[in-house]
Amino acid sequence: MSDNTSETVSSAIREVVDANHILFDQGVVDGFGHVSMRHPIKPNHFLLARSMAPALVTEADVLEFDADGAPVEAGGPAVYLERFIHSEIYRIRPDVVAVVHSHSPAVVPFSVVSGTKLRPICHMCGFLGAAAPVFEIRDFAGSGSDLLIRDAHLGAALAQSLGQSAAVLMRGHGSTVVGNTIRQAVFRAVYTEVGARLQSEAMRLGPVTYLTEEEAEATTTTNNTQIDRAWLLWLKAARNRAMAT
Amino acid sequence: MSDNTSETVSSAIREVVDANHILFDQGVVDGFGHVSMRHPIKPNHFLLARSMAPALVTEADVLEFDADGAPVEAGGPAVYLERFIHSEIYRIRPDVVAVVHSHSPAVVPFSVVSGTKLRPICHMCGFLGAAAPVFEIRDFAGSGSDLLIRDAHLGAALAQSLGQSAAVLMRGHGSTVVGNTIRQAVFRAVYTEVGARLQSEAMRLGPVTYLTEEEAEATTTTNNTQIDRAWLLWLKAARNRAMAT
Amino acid sequence: MSDNTSETVSSAIREVVDANHILFDQGVVDGFGHVSMRHPIKPNHFLLARSMAPALVTEADVLEFDADGAPVEAGGPAVYLERFIHSEIYRIRPDVVAVVHSHSPAVVPFSVVSGTKLRPICHMCGFLGAAAPVFEIRDFAGSGSDLLIRDAHLGAALAQSLGQSAAVLMRGHGSTVVGNTIRQAVFRAVYTEVGARLQSEAMRLGPVTYLTEEEAEATTTTNNTQIDRAWLLWLKAARNRAMAT
Amino acid sequence: MSDNTSETVSSAIREVVDANHILFDQGVVDGFGHVSMRHPIKPNHFLLARSMAPALVTEADVLEFDADGAPVEAGGPAVYLERFIHSEIYRIRPDVVAVVHSHSPAVVPFSVVSGTKLRPICHMCGFLGAAAPVFEIRDFAGSGSDLLIRDAHLGAALAQSLGQSAAVLMRGHGSTVVGNTIRQAVFRAVYTEVGARLQSEAMRLGPVTYLTEEEAEATTTTNNTQIDRAWLLWLKAARNRAMAT
Repeated sequence: MSDNTSETVSSAIREVVDANHILFDQGVVDGFGHVSMRHPIKPNHFLLARSMAPALVTEADVLEFDADGAPVEAGGPAVYLERFIHSEIYRIRPDVVAVVHSHSPAVVPFSVVSGTKLRPICHMCGFLGAAAPVFEIRDFAGSGSDLLIRDAHLGAALAQSLGQSAAVLMRGHGSTVVGNTIRQAVFRAVYTEVGARLQSEAMRLGPVTYLTEEEAEATTTTNNTQIDRAWLLWLKAARNRAMAT
Repeated sequence: MSDNTSETVSSAIREVVDANHILFDQGVVDGFGHVSMRHPIKPNHFLLARSMAPALVTEADVLEFDADGAPVEAGGPAVYLERFIHSEIYRIRPDVVAVVHSHSPAVVPFSVVSGTKLRPICHMCGFLGAAAPVFEIRDFAGSGSDLLIRDAHLGAALAQSLGQSAAVLMRGHGSTVVGNTIRQAVFRAVYTEVGARLQSEAMRLGPVTYLTEEEAEATTTTNNTQIDRAWLLWLKAARNRAMAT
Repeated sequence: MSDNTSETVSSAIREVVDANHILFDQGVVDGFGHVSMRHPIKPNHFLLARSMAPALVTEADVLEFDADGAPVEAGGPAVYLERFIHSEIYRIRPDVVAVVHSHSPAVVPFSVVSGTKLRPICHMCGFLGAAAPVFEIRDFAGSGSDLLIRDAHLGAALAQSLGQSAAVLMRGHGSTVVGNTIRQAVFRAVYTEVGARLQSEAMRLGPVTYLTEEEAEATTTTNNTQIDRAWLLWLKAARNRAMAT
Repeated sequence: MSDNTSETVSSAIREVVDANHILFDQGVVDGFGHVSMRHPIKPNHFLLARSMAPALVTEADVLEFDADGAPVEAGGPAVYLERFIHSEIYRIRPDVVAVVHSHSPAVVPFSVVSGTKLRPICHMCGFLGAAAPVFEIRDFAGSGSDLLIRDAHLGAALAQSLGQSAAVLMRGHGSTVVGNTIRQAVFRAVYTEVGARLQSEAMRLGPVTYLTEEEAEATTTTNNTQIDRAWLLWLKAARNRAMAT
């Protein structure tokens, strides 16, 4: 690699590490969950940590995966069972540059109640659009699976469910959120969790006025210009906690 | 400026910085939200940080804005899109010395359920009076806005909604709280959030007895004498977390 | 004072300081609320901090009050408006050695919903007995008060409401909890808050089985032998946070 | 003991200490609750701390108990009243290597509402199987007990209620969770609490789709291979808090 190329990749790896730490610090992931970034030089590859707790990821733990979700270097460490979430979304969504998969706690309840949709309740959650789709793995793996996206077939089905949305809920499991930068994906993952919490509280007070689709779109456009403000705060907060050192 | 004048302004700026840190530490603001103070020497101007996360604001980040919400120094850093919240409230409420805008999480649900009012549930929230008014931006910007108070027209409409109240909710967005000192505004912003949390919990237990308007007024008068007690605690707690250093 | 007497008083003051810090660290008090202890040498007097945030209290801030709630040393610092909560309970409850007054957040909702009683939901809350009584200040001060126990008359009315109970809720305000040691009072204040949280959650799941009065009594007897286990933990946790230094 | 044997026991004791700290740090235990491990050399004995707050346990505090729940060394420190939870489960469940007893806050509400079962709501909670059984102590100790498992008779009744399950709720008290390693027992105790929180939230949104029994079994098999990932994270988090030093 040239020095420039090498620096581009190093810089992407650092963002992946920071994203891991932020997602833990903001309560989106616990010991489980993962975040990837499309490879900045080889756009059908992606960068993702080896199988480990996100809070503890360092640069040395970030691996390169190919378009089929296989690690490029053979004989490496154990990798996430669900790397196919990432590979299959990158395959059909060329606009997507980063993918966050989590079991963030306020979102799971919306995944298991089929009559209630997760919808944009405030301007920070406009990216949810009309409502987040829900992926029911039973439709593809039967009623005896371990709920994990453990092969390309299930990854492709999940990617289909996601469609052109920013987030897809996974029944009895969690959610997957995408962005056109890693910072946008992290921003959306955090505010999907925040929005779910707000909606659950609001629904107990009475019938809720959600954003219109036009409001959802307009707020998304505005928020896209404000992402670094949150990112810099969250990075500082995560570093203050110093879990990875 | 004379030394005295200069010290008055510096002291005001320090309070604005402290208010930013307290509001973050108490969970009223996250990466977003802002707090301003009427300029102590030029009463139609106000002091407000540049566009950034409140937790990270330092004295150098606090700017002076004129009566129309324009920064006094041209060519400066990016400023908050919603500075018109502040300018328009200062314009029609000469009694107001400080303004807090936030998306504090327990309050947003009350902004989107038109049948349920945020009301004073305990003596710490007496300043809410009969109930907090709700500003519906659709009445002024149509149903396709980004929900932000991004011009003087919307700022004036919000200020009208606020009227003589201490707090106004903003549908799908958050709230704006005012005070006759910056410490009172911060105190009210914190206890608006606390009160919303208590009301939401109480409503699930059964029909709620709220404060009478007379009780709301009497508790406000008493609490106004106790604000420094909370401020000093919150300042120490915020400094212990040391986000801004 | 003899050396022994002096050491007895110093030791009591240290417990009062520790109790203040623990109550803050456990989320029972915020900037407001207070805890007192019957004077170990002059049993109709009591020890209570001057008017300040509990988290910041040091030994020098603890004052002696007489049986009528007046500070023994004239010309001292400002004192809590609601010191009559303490004086009037000590007057009619000779068994009480410590009193905690707080606005602990899970308890306030139970104070404003007249149809729902706070009851012992688990063995840690057995001291609540059949149910906690609720003090409605409107019955004594009319519907325009500031809800505070600001004189001996209201203190006596609250003490009557408390009766032989361990805790009394105060409508729109908070609660007061007593114990026959300061550690027991703190223990009960913490578990009143914990129990209120559990009851509110349980009530949303369906009809609740509470402790019988016999179970309430038996668990109280057992828990009274276990209080130091919690106290030592809470003290260490409070010191780790080091708010008062 | 040989050096090997001695190292095996020391290593087990260190795991018991770590488990104590993790359970506190993850909010499963507070000042109360306990975790034991079957003795690695003498399989009908077990290791359990003396009576103290779990967060403060050090290696010197871990004692050996015999099959009847008696400490092996006479004249030692005070021991937990409820050690019979451990002894009686080890007696009838040879597969069980570790036992966690707690009052974890989201679980208690499910213990007191007879019409609502705690069920596996997501893949992390598959070990709950069809639903967690509930132990009603009144059926064995009458309606005037202190709810504690204070003798072998009650311990045996609780063990019977547990049956072949991973977790049993205890009415008005808490729960007991078992594992075939201490890390698995801790993992399950944490995710019993997490699952209870999720289920309570989901139930307010509408009718819930739980895991099928086949899904519960498949997810358990998968999760058993991932336990160390969480354990290492939790251990680091607990050590960062440093309560026991």
